[in-house]
Amino acid sequence: MALKIGLITLFFSSSLWAQHALVFQTDFGLQEGAVASMKGVAFGVSPELNMFDVTHEIPRFNIWEAAYRLNQVADYWPKGTVFVNVVDPGVGTTRKSVVLKTKSGHFFVSPDNGSLSLVSESLGIDEVREINEKTNRLEGSERSHTFHGRDVYAYTGARLASEVIAFEQVGDLLTPSVMQLDYAKPELINKRIIGSVPILDAHYGNVWTNINVDLFDRLDINIGDEVWVKITNNAHELFFQKVKFVSSFGGVEIGEPAIYINDILNIGIAINQGDMAKEYKIKPGPNVTFLIWK
Amino acid sequence: MALKIGLITLFFSSSLWAQHALVFQTDFGLQEGAVASMKGVAFGVSPELNMFDVTHEIPRFNIWEAAYRLNQVADYWPKGTVFVNVVDPGVGTTRKSVVLKTKSGHFFVSPDNGSLSLVSESLGIDEVREINEKTNRLEGSERSHTFHGRDVYAYTGARLASEVIAFEQVGDLLTPSVMQLDYAKPELINKRIIGSVPILDAHYGNVWTNINVDLFDRLDINIGDEVWVKITNNAHELFFQKVKFVSSFGGVEIGEPAIYINDILNIGIAINQGDMAKEYKIKPGPNVTFLIWK
Amino acid sequence: MALKIGLITLFFSSSLWAQHALVFQTDFGLQEGAVASMKGVAFGVSPELNMFDVTHEIPRFNIWEAAYRLNQVADYWPKGTVFVNVVDPGVGTTRKSVVLKTKSGHFFVSPDNGSLSLVSESLGIDEVREINEKTNRLEGSERSHTFHGRDVYAYTGARLASEVIAFEQVGDLLTPSVMQLDYAKPELINKRIIGSVPILDAHYGNVWTNINVDLFDRLDINIGDEVWVKITNNAHELFFQKVKFVSSFGGVEIGEPAIYINDILNIGIAINQGDMAKEYKIKPGPNVTFLIWK
Repeated sequence: MALKIGLITLFFSSSLWAQHALVFQTDFGLQEGAVASMKGVAFGVSPELNMFDVTHEIPRFNIWEAAYRLNQVADYWPKGTVFVNVVDPGVGTTRKSVVLKTKSGHFFVSPDNGSLSLVSESLGIDEVREINEKTNRLEGSERSHTFHGRDVYAYTGARLASEVIAFEQVGDLLTPSVMQLDYAKPELINKRIIGSVPILDAHYGNVWTNINVDLFDRLDINIGDEVWVKITNNAHELFFQKVKFVSSFGGVEIGEPAIYINDILNIGIAINQGDMAKEYKIKPGPNVTFLIWK
Repeated sequence: MALKIGLITLFFSSSLWAQHALVFQTDFGLQEGAVASMKGVAFGVSPELNMFDVTHEIPRFNIWEAAYRLNQVADYWPKGTVFVNVVDPGVGTTRKSVVLKTKSGHFFVSPDNGSLSLVSESLGIDEVREINEKTNRLEGSERSHTFHGRDVYAYTGARLASEVIAFEQVGDLLTPSVMQLDYAKPELINKRIIGSVPILDAHYGNVWTNINVDLFDRLDINIGDEVWVKITNNAHELFFQKVKFVSSFGGVEIGEPAIYINDILNIGIAINQGDMAKEYKIKPGPNVTFLIWK
Repeated sequence: MALKIGLITLFFSSSLWAQHALVFQTDFGLQEGAVASMKGVAFGVSPELNMFDVTHEIPRFNIWEAAYRLNQVADYWPKGTVFVNVVDPGVGTTRKSVVLKTKSGHFFVSPDNGSLSLVSESLGIDEVREINEKTNRLEGSERSHTFHGRDVYAYTGARLASEVIAFEQVGDLLTPSVMQLDYAKPELINKRIIGSVPILDAHYGNVWTNINVDLFDRLDINIGDEVWVKITNNAHELFFQKVKFVSSFGGVEIGEPAIYINDILNIGIAINQGDMAKEYKIKPGPNVTFLIWK
């Protein structure tokens, strides 16, 4: 009987283990071995881990895009998922290595360099702990100070996801905040929404705004309606037209622009089967303003 | 005893679950978060799923290449494998969202836009069902109409692969056919085979024909024999030489062309350690004719 | 009781199975279906396998880089891990198909073309067996002689990793050696180390040397010290400056070069947030000499 119970426990604990995903994001690219070394270390922690990737093609040292991509995907992963983010221009400086636990129950292992700013806002901060690099470091890795991603972050992420350590064992509690990036929030002023273009859907050239669907709803626009859209870079006008609001690109002719709700529930503008960003020379950034009104 | 049986059942059903693979193909690229969101949704359906990728670098909206790649790999995956294909220029139009079950026991979750034409022919159609998007849609995703890939296709594929739903629960049976793409079949006329070049092995510049090994055998050519090969683009001659038929590229000198049987049992032509397509400016397409005779 | 024991055995053997990783490396790229076919074959051998990738972007036919990447990552994967390497300019020639078992307990399924030279040196050779392609070949694949990667290597790697076959069943023992690539070892002469630049960390443009930390230590240089670095290509000087030895790039200003210990414990030189290789036109290769002294 004891044996049977032992077996059941083993079986269930093994199953429960297997339920956390470990999801990597870096700016390392996949041409060389860095990502494979990180996964090897994680696999050494537990062969039961389920490992996935957001992307390893974050533009080099681009913290803003790292923050954006984490925020774009996190909510589609279940509670308990551990994200390991290594986009770290300040490796070896005073920026802290942390694990953020959000109110949604997701974990983010990352340098605290702004990469966590957007998820902290959208998912809420539960606790932030500083990684104790003495107790949470791959054995034998003390000599090389340059690859935190593998020796500390992947290792700690793997131990968290496989429940080899509890969250409390990551290290000391910090004040519940993470480094924030400056960015303007969208506003509704005089029946116009003023937003910005934080990022492109680069593969297609679609232009994504920071205007979410709840704010957009306040303009009372229905599918099929035409709205004014003006995009400027500083004083310079990049695009100014009436554009149809569609539920899918099939709602306009090939080659026509359309306003739509993108997959993270923000307003986007795209050309049906075309490349909006290229055609209108739109690059994301703080100087780009996106205006929309009826 | 009941407990023991329960445990056994659980154990086996859990094992059986784990045996289906969920294999993704898209034209999204891996620079941004769309593929990771799809996998997050699938992981949320079942953490036991085995997820893989054909490629996410199908050229944008290229249905022909999507069809070709599915057909190139499907047969190497076991019965029960569920493929999720999202190459969908007509998202939101009247093209149907379907699941094709082939006679070989593979499942393909895809828009019915021609992507399934080649697998339907080579593996045979067992049944086609239209996805009921009311019952097979990620909860909370009703608002955004633009990301079927995540909210309907990945979700439905994951539920099929993990046996959360049976094939019958996908939706209503359609007539057992899928949209076909036009393409010429190779023919043997007067001891010459007339074929075409549907695709390149782009990474190496090898040129692949649609002439399969059974048709080729009817020319009665043996390893080491030289054969005439003529490649034309409309009336324009691109290549016209005697070429050796080899069992491997080692059978000709470096820099020499050779005819061989490629990994999907069609005739290919390549330059040993060179780039055939580039050197002879061969691009795949319906206007390219490939002639071969003794 | 017998049932219970059977169940326990099944459970444990299933768990043990799952503990070996199967890790792929090729020069195929991920644009087309070859890698997916290899994984399909492996999945058909055992759905319990844990599959990973080093990279599929080894430059075409570049055996040196294949050797380097395997060596860069292998040690971070646990004992029992099976690597499948398919970078094979001589496919179909007399180069042998082998499995190397290293003293560290790792397995490498590969053509014996030099790809295994670096791991054989750093991890030690235990045994080398030639793959018996009669007994270790995917059923039905005899006709196509061109895709060893899928039909022999992936298949054999999967059967080894899942313990469907024991190492002895791979094929006959060869003499315990693998093909070596020529490359110069670093030397300490007159208080100067003369090394070379075998490879770049291409994504960042960091320049990696073959000078390991133990040899470097003999110069008695401490963090913060400045050292002379001279890089030449044949007689031509590419770089000649005093450079600071840092524990992380934060130790120098943005735009300044620094010497550091890279993640595989060799000396590297990089520009903080810059691209060293591009700025000084440094390409890896046997003609590039790297001198360092106090």
